[in-house]
Amino acid sequence: MLRQVVRNVERILPSWNPEVATSIFGVNISRSCGTTYSRRYSMKPKEMPSDNGLLFRQLFHEGTYTYTYLLACSKTRDAILIDPVDDMVDRDLKYADELGLNLIYGINTHVHADHVTGTGKLKEALPNLKSVISAKSGASADKCLENGNIITFGTEYLECRETPGHTGGCMTYVSHDHRMAFTGDALLIRGCGRTDFQQGNPSQLFDSVHKQIFSLPDNYRLYPGHDYKGFTVTSVGEEKTLNPRLTLSKEKFIEFMRELNLAYPRLIDVSVPANLKCGTLSKAAHDGSQQILDKLH
Amino acid sequence: MLRQVVRNVERILPSWNPEVATSIFGVNISRSCGTTYSRRYSMKPKEMPSDNGLLFRQLFHEGTYTYTYLLACSKTRDAILIDPVDDMVDRDLKYADELGLNLIYGINTHVHADHVTGTGKLKEALPNLKSVISAKSGASADKCLENGNIITFGTEYLECRETPGHTGGCMTYVSHDHRMAFTGDALLIRGCGRTDFQQGNPSQLFDSVHKQIFSLPDNYRLYPGHDYKGFTVTSVGEEKTLNPRLTLSKEKFIEFMRELNLAYPRLIDVSVPANLKCGTLSKAAHDGSQQILDKLH
Repeated sequence: MLRQVVRNVERILPSWNPEVATSIFGVNISRSCGTTYSRRYSMKPKEMPSDNGLLFRQLFHEGTYTYTYLLACSKTRDAILIDPVDDMVDRDLKYADELGLNLIYGINTHVHADHVTGTGKLKEALPNLKSVISAKSGASADKCLENGNIITFGTEYLECRETPGHTGGCMTYVSHDHRMAFTGDALLIRGCGRTDFQQGNPSQLFDSVHKQIFSLPDNYRLYPGHDYKGFTVTSVGEEKTLNPRLTLSKEKFIEFMRELNLAYPRLIDVSVPANLKCGTLSKAAHDGSQQILDKLH
Repeated sequence: MLRQVVRNVERILPSWNPEVATSIFGVNISRSCGTTYSRRYSMKPKEMPSDNGLLFRQLFHEGTYTYTYLLACSKTRDAILIDPVDDMVDRDLKYADELGLNLIYGINTHVHADHVTGTGKLKEALPNLKSVISAKSGASADKCLENGNIITFGTEYLECRETPGHTGGCMTYVSHDHRMAFTGDALLIRGCGRTDFQQGNPSQLFDSVHKQIFSLPDNYRLYPGHDYKGFTVTSVGEEKTLNPRLTLSKEKFIEFMRELNLAYPRLIDVSVPANLKCGTLSKAAHDGSQQILDKLH
């Protein structure tokens, strides 16, 4: 299967070097729904719409404007969540269960500063689910990714591309079969993540976006980690042409990012320590996070 | 073209009777960007991702949890907006302009009680844009639709299906080529619109959903008018199986809807009169709407 995957990648994207791509998840882990969450529904994949075998759903967390992505192989039902939010894990677990999916990975694009990842809660509910994040994030997780790794779930796969600059450990996940990429906060719709903490570096972010994202074909869909204006998706062609920050020269971009003077993130002191442990949060830390959110809403 | 459309519909959906489908928009109207809004961008359709010729984007309005849908023919650039929100018209106009699209219709699924439609503002900005709504809504508009009508934009089309019950004039728009339908508030993800005002009728809503939406193939995607939990899309198969209201017997459904005892909609006294004129709102009414929203946020 992986050989076919690499052939597909070569066909679609000649500039990508398949020699650097390595499968770290070539064999799917055994899985169950765990002891704390029991299956109540049984939607059959054939009843659900899919794009050439991929079942795909975008989910939104209103409180932090975060997008979580559910991707599943419609043949095997193996599924992953990208950037789950701790407060929405019950929703996500019920949803995956209703759709008859087996969640095998909880994947983060980076160590978030604005919300606590849901991977810790997911692992509590589904003991065989593995937490996944980039090695360079410095976070502890079941699987740590490096540039060029391939994540497989059923007959589907994602290529991992390191895109540091917003944080030092940001990773973009690319589906070549479905011409889509999950950019986290490296690239937002008509914007990008800030670069003033967590090893943020505007020069590095500029290079990451131009080399790792804008090098994809123009008609690849890009799904961001957040959106604050109600947009849901963009494309490589659009952002190469219309992104007001990333169409600047590198020098102008660095200057622009350095002059943003943004407020200190309201949840950073709670979320970063928790997310470095992939969302395993003490009760005190969780209560602290909730108090901050309660004050701000 | 329309003959081809009808043949496609016959092939995909044998139970649908093409004899009742009539094109009211067989000839596209001439169009321009108007005098009050000038084109600044020029994305070419080939640079944008499309599904078999359809460019499709889902847009969200945070204040009222409303989804607006942008659909365009990637060949001709003719585009429509379904359920635009007045406060988001500037965003939507800029977005369509950036993508190089010609907005020809502002279409409503029904007379909304929770927000003012953006069609009035769209018409101010784009004088050749036509407002569209069902005839049974009682609203004034440039085009009033009946069951079985076909809306065309470029080489794309939508079938109009009357789905009353949330209001007396609700319409669901179906794209058979792309296996998707826009249900407004007739069917929400795992829910449905309330039935206690604006000629709402739970018995009628039950019949509408079962006869006009659940009769579509299971793998048609359904895009609702709102979502309050961060879901973005569902499917016929899912809702037939998992919708907690619409899987009840008709009697139980009617009883459930009659016992909801929901609060009076906060914007109904402003939005319904405005929406009966497709969003042409007096300044006093607009200010009143804003005051109510300001108090509630």
